[in-house]
Amino acid sequence: MKAVHIAVVGATGAVGREVLRILEERDVTLLGLRPIASARSEGKTVPFRGEDVPVTVISERAFDGVDLVIWDTPDEVAVEWMPKVRDRVVNIDNSSAFRLYEDVPLVVPEVNPESARAHKGLVANPNCTMMTLLMPLAPLHRAANARRVICSSYQSVSGAGVAGVDDLYEQLEKLLPEREAVRRGLVDLPPGRAFVHPIAFNVIPHVGGFDSAGTTSEERRVASETRKILGSDTEIFATTVRVPTVVGHGISAWVEFERPIEADEARALLKAADGVTLEDDPKTNRYPTTLQSSGIDKAMVGRVRNDPANTNALGFFSACDNLRKGAALNAVQIAELLIDKNWL
Amino acid sequence: MKAVHIAVVGATGAVGREVLRILEERDVTLLGLRPIASARSEGKTVPFRGEDVPVTVISERAFDGVDLVIWDTPDEVAVEWMPKVRDRVVNIDNSSAFRLYEDVPLVVPEVNPESARAHKGLVANPNCTMMTLLMPLAPLHRAANARRVICSSYQSVSGAGVAGVDDLYEQLEKLLPEREAVRRGLVDLPPGRAFVHPIAFNVIPHVGGFDSAGTTSEERRVASETRKILGSDTEIFATTVRVPTVVGHGISAWVEFERPIEADEARALLKAADGVTLEDDPKTNRYPTTLQSSGIDKAMVGRVRNDPANTNALGFFSACDNLRKGAALNAVQIAELLIDKNWL
Repeated sequence: MKAVHIAVVGATGAVGREVLRILEERDVTLLGLRPIASARSEGKTVPFRGEDVPVTVISERAFDGVDLVIWDTPDEVAVEWMPKVRDRVVNIDNSSAFRLYEDVPLVVPEVNPESARAHKGLVANPNCTMMTLLMPLAPLHRAANARRVICSSYQSVSGAGVAGVDDLYEQLEKLLPEREAVRRGLVDLPPGRAFVHPIAFNVIPHVGGFDSAGTTSEERRVASETRKILGSDTEIFATTVRVPTVVGHGISAWVEFERPIEADEARALLKAADGVTLEDDPKTNRYPTTLQSSGIDKAMVGRVRNDPANTNALGFFSACDNLRKGAALNAVQIAELLIDKNWL
Repeated sequence: MKAVHIAVVGATGAVGREVLRILEERDVTLLGLRPIASARSEGKTVPFRGEDVPVTVISERAFDGVDLVIWDTPDEVAVEWMPKVRDRVVNIDNSSAFRLYEDVPLVVPEVNPESARAHKGLVANPNCTMMTLLMPLAPLHRAANARRVICSSYQSVSGAGVAGVDDLYEQLEKLLPEREAVRRGLVDLPPGRAFVHPIAFNVIPHVGGFDSAGTTSEERRVASETRKILGSDTEIFATTVRVPTVVGHGISAWVEFERPIEADEARALLKAADGVTLEDDPKTNRYPTTLQSSGIDKAMVGRVRNDPANTNALGFFSACDNLRKGAALNAVQIAELLIDKNWL
């Protein structure tokens, strides 16, 4: 693989840090690594391969000499800076800002690697919740054409960044001695930074912003990004929900296909699929849990079972590390794909 | 209302304690209250209306002089003891042992009160997860005939009793200082009493026992008990999932009806329904959370929205206190119904 100079924008955030960890583990040959962040991180360093690398504050010159940039920033930062650098370097963007643009490929290397070839300086990295659904759905769709998906998510707080993780831990510390108040729902906490309701000991059916029909941006992303990556018109009805876990998103999905499909056939397809680990032996209590999916590179899938009322339909539960395959790992895999295929 | 002598079997358990609290709050006129428990609780007392009431160890004589018994025990205790007392006293059973028997009414007073009339000494109290689905589903079903439900649950640990609550708190105490291990999924804990995997910081798609098709007993209960109470053949595909919360079960549901139904019509029906609180104004961040549902008597429902791909279908999210309406409160409401209607 060709040696490259990589920059990571948002290198001090939850996903940015994970990108650095994954780059440490993988085979990418680096001519250099440049961590970039906002002025708030001026003077900071980030650890990388045993060294403390100083953070470069974002500016147009910060990208000089770089071949490839991985962006892990809020949408507004990507929107502001991408036009200024897109002609000079190849960008992999983990924000949701450009994912549905027609001239921006949205890529999962195990599923649609070819679509990356036509990039115009920008490849988008998909949403982490969508990834939890997509990884098991893609091989099943290829075999039996998914017509309709109804799914509900179980999303960890790290999906909302470092602020989400801090909210959960701070609230847990405060509420652990208050057992009776928690039991009675009489919880009085200062507002968190990431969530509008307390997240400790709670389930919040709200991820992203609401549109006028009462659907969240996260729910729309699950539907539209899945359809774009699969290149299909599969109907997807998603409900996205935050739960008090740190890392690992879960999805409970029901899928109706164009033809009858037995759970055994689905398991065989999932077992053979890249980027998926089949964990499905209920008799021995083997099924995916979100904690088990944390720190591993593949999406775990299990609880595969037929819908007794519909021979064309299956249910499954999948779990995926939202910081790794759901974000940082997939971005690094896109980088590897572009380098390996000479598509830079 | 006629004055009665009530016994509570399992009075020292999670639901039994809640029955006592609810009896303290309500208008039932008691000639006496007898807490009954297993020999393990011999010598214990339970607090009731300012007194410490001694626990009676279960035996046939323990039921002498009692009019009505509320049972909050494991299935096997109900199966052993019910035949011995069913001819002498009227029983309300919160176990799942008899719920689907043809001669045992399964009753939610707001939904099917009339079915309690024909009881033969035994009325069954339904499952707490089913209740979270049923309370909003029933008024919608009456108006538009629900043909199909696909739902996923978010169940608190108190659904697994005191042992479940203890597991969560003990694991949280151990894991709070271990942030990096939690983040990496490298959690090494002794086995809990209630769950086969760690529940702190985890999502576990397993509630109850698995059948040969890989469906859990809880998933079967959600389907079969809903159908029995609604008196319908609605097809229900449920996935039941444990999350690290203490009290309050959530359900994310998608429902297809026999005719088109607008979200506004559904909201009007839910607003008018007994036992349901509509909490549905996303713009002001109002929707049900499980913590908000804790300690209140009604099921909360919100996130009501149409499926853009199917005019006959709606999604909603509901939350319900699994110890109150999901168990103890409904049992006390059945007792009140039987006393009020003179059906004892």
